[in-house]
Amino acid sequence: MSLLVVGSVARDTIRTPHGEVQDALGGAAVYFSLAACNFTPVRLVGVVGDDFSEDDIALLGKRDIDLAGLQVVEGGRTFRWSGEYSEDMNSRETLSVELNVFEHFEPVLPADYTDSSFVFLANASPATQLSVLGQVESPVCVMADTMDLWIEIARDELVELLGRINGISLNDAEALQLTGCRNLIDAGQAILEMGPGTVIVKKGEHGAVLFTEAGVVALPAYPTGEVVDPTGAGDSFAGALMGSLSRAGAVDEEGLKTAIAYGSVVASFTCEGFGTARLAEINPDEVNDRFLSYCESLQICR
Amino acid sequence: MSLLVVGSVARDTIRTPHGEVQDALGGAAVYFSLAACNFTPVRLVGVVGDDFSEDDIALLGKRDIDLAGLQVVEGGRTFRWSGEYSEDMNSRETLSVELNVFEHFEPVLPADYTDSSFVFLANASPATQLSVLGQVESPVCVMADTMDLWIEIARDELVELLGRINGISLNDAEALQLTGCRNLIDAGQAILEMGPGTVIVKKGEHGAVLFTEAGVVALPAYPTGEVVDPTGAGDSFAGALMGSLSRAGAVDEEGLKTAIAYGSVVASFTCEGFGTARLAEINPDEVNDRFLSYCESLQICR
Repeated sequence: MSLLVVGSVARDTIRTPHGEVQDALGGAAVYFSLAACNFTPVRLVGVVGDDFSEDDIALLGKRDIDLAGLQVVEGGRTFRWSGEYSEDMNSRETLSVELNVFEHFEPVLPADYTDSSFVFLANASPATQLSVLGQVESPVCVMADTMDLWIEIARDELVELLGRINGISLNDAEALQLTGCRNLIDAGQAILEMGPGTVIVKKGEHGAVLFTEAGVVALPAYPTGEVVDPTGAGDSFAGALMGSLSRAGAVDEEGLKTAIAYGSVVASFTCEGFGTARLAEINPDEVNDRFLSYCESLQICR
Repeated sequence: MSLLVVGSVARDTIRTPHGEVQDALGGAAVYFSLAACNFTPVRLVGVVGDDFSEDDIALLGKRDIDLAGLQVVEGGRTFRWSGEYSEDMNSRETLSVELNVFEHFEPVLPADYTDSSFVFLANASPATQLSVLGQVESPVCVMADTMDLWIEIARDELVELLGRINGISLNDAEALQLTGCRNLIDAGQAILEMGPGTVIVKKGEHGAVLFTEAGVVALPAYPTGEVVDPTGAGDSFAGALMGSLSRAGAVDEEGLKTAIAYGSVVASFTCEGFGTARLAEINPDEVNDRFLSYCESLQICR
């Protein structure tokens, strides 16, 4: 089924204990799309300046990523982010943010995108996310991401959004912040009560926890020792997750577990290269091999 | 097969955001035994003072725990520990430690324990652990635990121990400290190279990672929202792990995964009560029900 993502397209400058990359292709919608295109074609809606290079367009365009919704602002400059990771890479400091053309981005879906069945509202203000939600006609499944800033300054709109979408993926710190809970399991359940039928709490190297009315399932991250840059891991997790759900065409607990497994696997590839370098080169066979070994590792003799 | 644990028996005073308990039965060997006895009989070697109550002896004795190796020092006082957990219970501060009779404990195995097949050397100085190791004749599997203190002050003996045992279970911070690695996966593999065929890195609420020559397997914790006191979770994890292995009578990757699953499940029960309160009341059926639901939650449709 058709899959749509709306979110940032960026140029990232990233420093980790393993090295540095400057002005690399990035942004939530990019990571999402490069992950999801291993499962199903993706429609990307975002905005860039005219400094966005032909190479970047080519890199995205040669995968199954439809760029009809990628708005190019003449004379504008693409969103830029720069950050540095700690020694253990479990935390990072944002060194600079230039919103540029992303600051006043008001996404307008191309007419033939409004029938999208699966929709991912990548991190943006809840107002922007609500405006996109209003443009899709009768989606099967809409999921969203968010961040600490929106929980802090736009809580009411975020709560409104949660009441109108099918699922939310957010990280552990955000889940605790949103609910005021001290325990992740309690937090996930509290967010379920805010409306979405599916809550996925991402825990980075520790995996993710799925909350549905069927119960709570914790799944580990794929254990990779070759983490050189975690940037985009969460967005590529979401891309593989939504890609898997969209390919299956349905959202039930079994499908969500499969989707999270794919998310963990694709996120592990992302971490093995700087920026999108490793993610952009994987193919469905490679994803599937790692997925099968992940699933097998979780089979326990009873 | 016969299972032996050598380690501390204590009285703990514990404060968590959920309440407080004073002078409660505790200690690594106690948590280990109360967990392991759901799988197989346990031989406990430890030391207490004459302040150790008949009630405690009765609580342990009514389970399948052999106390022939529990030394009672006349006029001595039992090891006491007191600690307080942080709001999120992911860290704790030791408020006081009185080693008492544990300070000069030199474990001597009863003659009919020297044939033990499965042996767990709970946290103690590596010198003490090595001395116990020297007393068992031809064990099938010896595993040990350790702590930051020994890595700091008795590293050489710890490394010697690692070269002579089959497995080590330690927590994430300890694994990084022992190896100087920045990444847990690298750390686990580095410890494998120090000798033991099995390395289990415990990550508390995030589960555990198993390292063997067959590869790396990450398994989640059993997701319980009712965490009131994490004290003893690691030791009861180890108890269920060794109990499961001992019951199976062999140590291979499949058996280790099953054992870790049991460990996670029993540790989740431990966290649901103060001290040993919840752990002491569980039975094999209850353990098995939760184990089956844990395994089922990890089955992913391919």
